[in-house]
Amino acid sequence: MNTFGKNLRLTTFGESHGPAMGGVLDGVPPRIRLDFDLIKVLIDERRTGTSTLVSARKESDTPEFLSGLSPEGVTLGTPLAFIIRNTDQRSSDYDELRHVYRPNHADYAYDVRYGIRDWRGGGRSSARETVSRVVAGAIAMQILRQYGVTIEAGIISVGESGELPFREKMAKEGRFDFPEELAEEMRDEVERARRDCDSVGGMVGCAVYGIPPGIGDPVFGKLQSALASAMMSINAAKGFDYGYGFDLASSRGLATADTFLPPDEPTQTLRLTTATNYSGGIQGGISNGMPVYMRVAFKPTPSVATEQATVDDQGRKVILGVRGRHDPCVALRGVPIVKAMAALVVADMLLETEGRK
Amino acid sequence: MNTFGKNLRLTTFGESHGPAMGGVLDGVPPRIRLDFDLIKVLIDERRTGTSTLVSARKESDTPEFLSGLSPEGVTLGTPLAFIIRNTDQRSSDYDELRHVYRPNHADYAYDVRYGIRDWRGGGRSSARETVSRVVAGAIAMQILRQYGVTIEAGIISVGESGELPFREKMAKEGRFDFPEELAEEMRDEVERARRDCDSVGGMVGCAVYGIPPGIGDPVFGKLQSALASAMMSINAAKGFDYGYGFDLASSRGLATADTFLPPDEPTQTLRLTTATNYSGGIQGGISNGMPVYMRVAFKPTPSVATEQATVDDQGRKVILGVRGRHDPCVALRGVPIVKAMAALVVADMLLETEGRK
Amino acid sequence: MNTFGKNLRLTTFGESHGPAMGGVLDGVPPRIRLDFDLIKVLIDERRTGTSTLVSARKESDTPEFLSGLSPEGVTLGTPLAFIIRNTDQRSSDYDELRHVYRPNHADYAYDVRYGIRDWRGGGRSSARETVSRVVAGAIAMQILRQYGVTIEAGIISVGESGELPFREKMAKEGRFDFPEELAEEMRDEVERARRDCDSVGGMVGCAVYGIPPGIGDPVFGKLQSALASAMMSINAAKGFDYGYGFDLASSRGLATADTFLPPDEPTQTLRLTTATNYSGGIQGGISNGMPVYMRVAFKPTPSVATEQATVDDQGRKVILGVRGRHDPCVALRGVPIVKAMAALVVADMLLETEGRK
Amino acid sequence: MNTFGKNLRLTTFGESHGPAMGGVLDGVPPRIRLDFDLIKVLIDERRTGTSTLVSARKESDTPEFLSGLSPEGVTLGTPLAFIIRNTDQRSSDYDELRHVYRPNHADYAYDVRYGIRDWRGGGRSSARETVSRVVAGAIAMQILRQYGVTIEAGIISVGESGELPFREKMAKEGRFDFPEELAEEMRDEVERARRDCDSVGGMVGCAVYGIPPGIGDPVFGKLQSALASAMMSINAAKGFDYGYGFDLASSRGLATADTFLPPDEPTQTLRLTTATNYSGGIQGGISNGMPVYMRVAFKPTPSVATEQATVDDQGRKVILGVRGRHDPCVALRGVPIVKAMAALVVADMLLETEGRK
Repeated sequence: MNTFGKNLRLTTFGESHGPAMGGVLDGVPPRIRLDFDLIKVLIDERRTGTSTLVSARKESDTPEFLSGLSPEGVTLGTPLAFIIRNTDQRSSDYDELRHVYRPNHADYAYDVRYGIRDWRGGGRSSARETVSRVVAGAIAMQILRQYGVTIEAGIISVGESGELPFREKMAKEGRFDFPEELAEEMRDEVERARRDCDSVGGMVGCAVYGIPPGIGDPVFGKLQSALASAMMSINAAKGFDYGYGFDLASSRGLATADTFLPPDEPTQTLRLTTATNYSGGIQGGISNGMPVYMRVAFKPTPSVATEQATVDDQGRKVILGVRGRHDPCVALRGVPIVKAMAALVVADMLLETEGRK
Repeated sequence: MNTFGKNLRLTTFGESHGPAMGGVLDGVPPRIRLDFDLIKVLIDERRTGTSTLVSARKESDTPEFLSGLSPEGVTLGTPLAFIIRNTDQRSSDYDELRHVYRPNHADYAYDVRYGIRDWRGGGRSSARETVSRVVAGAIAMQILRQYGVTIEAGIISVGESGELPFREKMAKEGRFDFPEELAEEMRDEVERARRDCDSVGGMVGCAVYGIPPGIGDPVFGKLQSALASAMMSINAAKGFDYGYGFDLASSRGLATADTFLPPDEPTQTLRLTTATNYSGGIQGGISNGMPVYMRVAFKPTPSVATEQATVDDQGRKVILGVRGRHDPCVALRGVPIVKAMAALVVADMLLETEGRK
Repeated sequence: MNTFGKNLRLTTFGESHGPAMGGVLDGVPPRIRLDFDLIKVLIDERRTGTSTLVSARKESDTPEFLSGLSPEGVTLGTPLAFIIRNTDQRSSDYDELRHVYRPNHADYAYDVRYGIRDWRGGGRSSARETVSRVVAGAIAMQILRQYGVTIEAGIISVGESGELPFREKMAKEGRFDFPEELAEEMRDEVERARRDCDSVGGMVGCAVYGIPPGIGDPVFGKLQSALASAMMSINAAKGFDYGYGFDLASSRGLATADTFLPPDEPTQTLRLTTATNYSGGIQGGISNGMPVYMRVAFKPTPSVATEQATVDDQGRKVILGVRGRHDPCVALRGVPIVKAMAALVVADMLLETEGRK
Repeated sequence: MNTFGKNLRLTTFGESHGPAMGGVLDGVPPRIRLDFDLIKVLIDERRTGTSTLVSARKESDTPEFLSGLSPEGVTLGTPLAFIIRNTDQRSSDYDELRHVYRPNHADYAYDVRYGIRDWRGGGRSSARETVSRVVAGAIAMQILRQYGVTIEAGIISVGESGELPFREKMAKEGRFDFPEELAEEMRDEVERARRDCDSVGGMVGCAVYGIPPGIGDPVFGKLQSALASAMMSINAAKGFDYGYGFDLASSRGLATADTFLPPDEPTQTLRLTTATNYSGGIQGGISNGMPVYMRVAFKPTPSVATEQATVDDQGRKVILGVRGRHDPCVALRGVPIVKAMAALVVADMLLETEGRK
């Protein structure tokens, strides 16, 4: 199905080359004055990524809000519906694809699943679907603002660039400052892939600051379970970990235990911190008040600017020519989407505990 | 909440030191003759792990079925409820813990969340909760049998042992034979951790064979999204990836494209295979008929046989003594739980497409 | 929340005087060529009711489909989103209402619930919301067509007109032919209410033919439970019963037992009918193959063409003048909505059993 | 499925003649000291109904709690699981029924749905399933207590006894005192049915006092929608209405408008009452603070002490003899179940707004 969340519920719709993309975000608390600039910033971040390295469609992607807002732009507590018209569609780019299964794409699996597919640009499996998530995520961030929660994310590796010390800093120093610009070695990796008419994978790091302790459920509703589900629903995502993640599999327990620190002075409500944060701010599925951080691994996009041998829907060998736009590194556009999904998850969990008032 | 799944729905209950653990599995198709031996095998696998390396409680953990079965042991299509009595409880082991927050445990987060907790053995956050998942997973496997789906899993690394070539074999040869015994270097890692009164992390690999193509939904209901959510709901799991996973973040697109192979001879329904399987059997969230494989990273358990400094629920420093049983490597017991969760997810998705009849 | 259904899931959005009404219908099986005429027929039925007796807004209410369809108008299996622009809004009709709580309206309850409301025309609680249900219901009917299920409905009483022998015919003869025109005594009741600047209640009967036996779940998922929930979610609905309904409370068991009839000739699959159908086609929550029929009671609309004393949002007495359009009998417009909701429920349940393929 | 509710979620299990009935109630707030006496009172009310008029099984029906409670009986915020062993089963009463479809029972529909059924006593469709609802409902009542919400219910008609002035009193005076004993004419109706080896229907009225205004959602989550779904999920229930209900279909708007009363003195938060309460405490799906009241119509039970002609699972005519216990009026036992379901719905909605803390 196309709905995500329990208390804050996003339903997205739209095919890449249909009339419009859009979403309905239900459960937004009433009386929030929407910050449309923040929405635009996140949309632009998704659309252009780091400028020259991304194959932007020409749409401005301005959402039209159809419901849920007072004339003054204040949320009513009712579902917020928004649409983004598809205008730069170039369907003819895709004529060749009507009967061809592109390697590593959803084309074949779709045909088995549905017996029909919108072959123009991948239909529903197009990365364009994520524009709706970004709009909804920007609204979720405004809910989170009221609780003092903020989210930061950035590219931490591209191809063989090596990984920024994101987890080390988060575990030991409690924060990581994502560089404003893509590091040179990463930029080189992208450029090399483009020159080779190839693509390259990458990794996104994401940190959430200010989550109050006590959010999340202990068994199937673990905070990390919802985050993993959210991140793995992003196109091209192949892996997720949080806290010290996969490296904990090769670690010892005593060296990575996050020791509780006694509070400096007595407080009415006991609030603890830990000396380190290998746990990633979650223990037993429930937030402990320390920053939550995670990584998402993105595969190299299967759309490359090179001819590829494949099979058509009659089972015949065909050579797939080079068409249309290509992103040499889709991870670059993953950053705002990772932030958006993190915002949706955390806001959903906060509303679970806080109620919808 | 304590419910997992949509069409095949598991609700678990029980505190580690309460009267019983148990679960209700709803949505099991009618007319399946339950194989109680299979359930017992999986329970034993969880309980004892690889024998001497695991601190088994003495319970035999035989589930009592309370509903959903005919007198002949055939499913009725109604909810299957089962309970496992807690008998080997040693609550006195835990007296010291009534007011203490163990490092890296859920104790503190629980207290913030609920304002009350069952401090005897971790209550609901105890790994004992997973016994219910194993029973349900064994039933899910019997549903999957009817569709020809099988699941295998095993330890692929412990601490710094190095990783078995699980993904390489799966991507290039289409299967991996998990060794029957834990490799010597892994066994050494466990023993060293035990000797050091410490604990060590590990990694579980899991492969699902025989999933028909066309299972899963393209957006939020992606097969990998449900698998990630399931795996990250397991105690001590810190990371998940599928297919070539995190290594795809450092890969190029052409080198890891899974080329479609034309069928050997024409068939009524087109069924394709791919030359390699870096994708891990899923494209665009939907199975493509190739094996699905994944890794789950487990952290070193925070319960160690060493004194640790921590804080109590008044915010005072305390020294936590050594108590009770300790597993030097909880990943060892993770194997049947990973299999069980994979079975629950895949069966749920199959029933989504196939209907409940 | 604003979502209805499990396998066929409708999310509606839109305020009466906002930019648009609309909905997202998820779970529609792929490869159905939509019959847009059927959609239009149902929309018109809702809009005009029985012509002169209903205060139609001037909108033509043509839905724009934004997703889920191939260029040829065939469903893709992905969410169908549609919007209907609000054009005939006359917000100035409502200026007086900004701070006033109309009697028997949702105004006051809304203000307590949300602390904000769109006072222009009732916002989300306006009957206009049901236009989205009618569009979705017309699509559900096209799913049902594939299974041979048809739905009929009509007015069976208005005010004190007396009740058409709907249930008697359904119970004893197996069908009821709704008259094409509103009976004269009902028409008189409506006209009298209008002349008195008052409103009047009414009752809708609905019959569903062709539901295969075996649909519905035995406990909380009873077919009648879902139907009741659906019908009671319609504005102004105050009561629901099915089969012989409330009259069974004053009946004897033997006189209303539906005797099974042996099949005329042996068939592979046993399919039974009953001599009478007091049960209304459902036994133990599951359809038995006989027609399902139900009644929905509608209250007289609280909007009347008479001055009324009420209270404003400062707790002060105010006199509410006469404004805008008034429907003397909202039940008349309830007919297509009852049909739409019945279609959504039955299609959802069919897909539960049949799967989504 | 066998789960009811969203924030307070009851899953029931158990066949009438299997090992046990039971349920899991998830979402109960932590730190409530359970009142086991209240649970027992409601169980006894269900079991014995009005004493001599009901065919009680001999079980004492004492639930065993398996989880969710501290040793002191205080809720932990984790799922409460409970079971009630089936001890008085008399399966032999049912031998005759193995291949017979009883008229108006679920037997045939079950066989079509599942292809297998527990023919001993109706299995899952037995009224015995409701014992789990009563336990859960009694716990829900204890949640409601904290908010000052109370629930009362009683029989308001049996057969042709005439109806107590329940709705009149509720609409005009704001409360109804259910008589402690069944009125004589109702008792006579039951006795006459028993003497005739027949059964008779009846009606239950239910009033909920103290619901704060602002509970419920405006569209599909209307409070009345959830109540209707809950009530229609009770065995033998055939109709539901709330407020003035079906009689509003024959009423005029002005005569049944609930005029708002200005508050006696200004208060910080505006809280209004209405002069009458035809609405039944709900406007636009949201509570307005006035009492919520409703009726549930129960059919005469199809189990009668008279021979009946029917059909077996081979389609052959058979005569069904008289077996086992018979309740001449199942409505009598419906009272505690109606209360329990009302408590579950209202507590669920309260937790939606208030959050789970």
